Amino acid sequence: MLIGAIEAGGTKIICAVGDGSGEIRAKQSIPTREPEETLQEVKAFFSAYDLDALGVGSFGPVDLNRDSGTYGTILNTPKAAWKHFNLLGRLQADYEIPVYIDTDVNAACLAEYHHGAGIDVNSCLYITVGTGIGAGLVQNGQTFQGKSHPEMGHIMVPKHGTDPFTGVCPYHGNCLEGMASGPAIEERHGRKGHLLDDHPYVWELEAHYLAHAIVTYTLVLFPERIILGGGVMKQKLLLSLIREKVSRLLNGYVDVGEMDKFITAPALDDEQGVKGAIALAAGNV
Amino acid sequence: MLIGAIEAGGTKIICAVGDGSGEIRAKQSIPTREPEETLQEVKAFFSAYDLDALGVGSFGPVDLNRDSGTYGTILNTPKAAWKHFNLLGRLQADYEIPVYIDTDVNAACLAEYHHGAGIDVNSCLYITVGTGIGAGLVQNGQTFQGKSHPEMGHIMVPKHGTDPFTGVCPYHGNCLEGMASGPAIEERHGRKGHLLDDHPYVWELEAHYLAHAIVTYTLVLFPERIILGGGVMKQKLLLSLIREKVSRLLNGYVDVGEMDKFITAPALDDEQGVKGAIALAAGNV
Ligand SMILES: Nc1ncnc2c1ncn2[C@@H]1O[C@H](COP(=O)(O)OP(=O)(O)O)[C@@H](O)[C@H]1O
Ligand SMILES: Nc1ncnc2c1ncn2[C@@H]1O[C@H](COP(=O)(O)OP(=O)(O)O)[C@@H](O)[C@H]1O
Ligand SMILES: [Zn+2]
Ligand SMILES: [Zn+2]
Repeated sequence: MLIGAIEAGGTKIICAVGDGSGEIRAKQSIPTREPEETLQEVKAFFSAYDLDALGVGSFGPVDLNRDSGTYGTILNTPKAAWKHFNLLGRLQADYEIPVYIDTDVNAACLAEYHHGAGIDVNSCLYITVGTGIGAGLVQNGQTFQGKSHPEMGHIMVPKHGTDPFTGVCPYHGNCLEGMASGPAIEERHGRKGHLLDDHPYVWELEAHYLAHAIVTYTLVLFPERIILGGGVMKQKLLLSLIREKVSRLLNGYVDVGEMDKFITAPALDDEQGVKGAIALAAGNV
Repeated sequence: MLIGAIEAGGTKIICAVGDGSGEIRAKQSIPTREPEETLQEVKAFFSAYDLDALGVGSFGPVDLNRDSGTYGTILNTPKAAWKHFNLLGRLQADYEIPVYIDTDVNAACLAEYHHGAGIDVNSCLYITVGTGIGAGLVQNGQTFQGKSHPEMGHIMVPKHGTDPFTGVCPYHGNCLEGMASGPAIEERHGRKGHLLDDHPYVWELEAHYLAHAIVTYTLVLFPERIILGGGVMKQKLLLSLIREKVSRLLNGYVDVGEMDKFITAPALDDEQGVKGAIALAAGNV
């Protein structure tokens, strides 16, 4: 079985080929330009392989309501040419093999569940903290969605007492993404996160917002494990700060087991997206 | 097929018998005393029927982690005699038929999903606003749980700007339950909710907290429908106040469809619990 994977992001599209074992055979990164030229480059990459199925982890929001006439279509996005683009339909037409689509973060979660930091649990939540904040849940091998995929990065979180920042989310201002994404850190402190290593207050605020969100997700979803990925999590010490605050906030109210196992780093270093897209297709073929 | 149902609450236990069609054949309410005498009364009621299975919707928290050695056991509860009581084990021993257990609010949700206000959707969230606040989700006919059942009533919600109240939750103070349960209303305003009909500010606050929680649940779970039950929701106008605020807060960010259909009242008037317990067993037998 040979499976193609597409991880479609706002700046680049990663294409890969694998067989469902969790190993990648070939991989290429393509800059995200207009749909037409981008997808022609994608096709050129895959033309060397005789694929059985294609899995896609896409930036969102994307319509994942199977009852909808626009299933598999990109919804709102600042990239005008991709807005309302029928990504699934186009790929089905291009490849004439089964195509499975989910969000990028659901795909990442699925990869960690099958091959990475969630391999020993039945339910895990993957949170990415990068340019945006998003999360995906996998339960018993299935990615979770209601009417369509969740938008967990946009929940409101209690303001830190000493933080005057009003947030950068274009929709909500001070939602979690507005207060704790990479651009929020840059806007609040005037410098990108990787240049703020020696500023503990920056990470105190960051841990505050992420811990509150994690507590909410825990009370609503009660996952067995929470995996924290994305560029901002590259910041050393942030993970342990978050664990401390989550412990304090949960205060034993729900039994999450050992905190160091409950909240953890990803295991698949930046290959979650494509590995998850492969797992998505492999699980359906 | 004859199914017994137990809705176990803190003040009363309702027993019923049905056949899975959604109709109840017999029903009895028994005050919740010590486990031993209470369960003997329950047994007396069921002794007239030749049951094929038993479904239980229980107050919580109850251990619903199937991998746990204490699956089906009541966890913390102010009712000392029920704390750590193995409810599932005891019922299995008493009846020697299959017994299925879930939370009271998951059972209520299942009943509304199969026979009530959620009959036309694939996923619905049932929220009860009463002495406590709890919620249960049903997706494609299954009640949702992670490691065990969620504790959605205890999420933090942004404080209303003019509300000095510090909340009544013994664990968290000002969580949703602490700020918006029936006892929270009584403690804040010095009178029970049904005596506060003509005090719009009371319901302004109440709608504020519930609307914020509903927005969080929507972003995390994206249910197709949200059903609001429990004693406090008997307050006229509260439902429409909540709808207004949720509309304003969501601001079109996720497409929940028509607000009057998205957030709605229960259809099964106080029989959700036992009907759901029957549906739980019927779906498994
Ligand atoms: N060491 C670091 N500490 C804090 N923030 C970082 C660090 N490295 C990268 N970031 C931030 O992470 C964000 C990029 O996240 P990433 O997950 O790599 O990309 P994207 O979310 O766009 O896919 C940027 O805002 C960047 O400033
Ligand atoms: N009309 C009403 N308006 C507001 N609150 C009410 C009204 N009727 C009952 N309540 C409140 O609802 C709570 C009881 O909720 P209920 O769902 O009936 O019971 P429980 O949660 O104990 O199962 C009490 O706090 C009561 O004051
Ligand atoms: Zn937002
Ligand atoms: Zn609480």
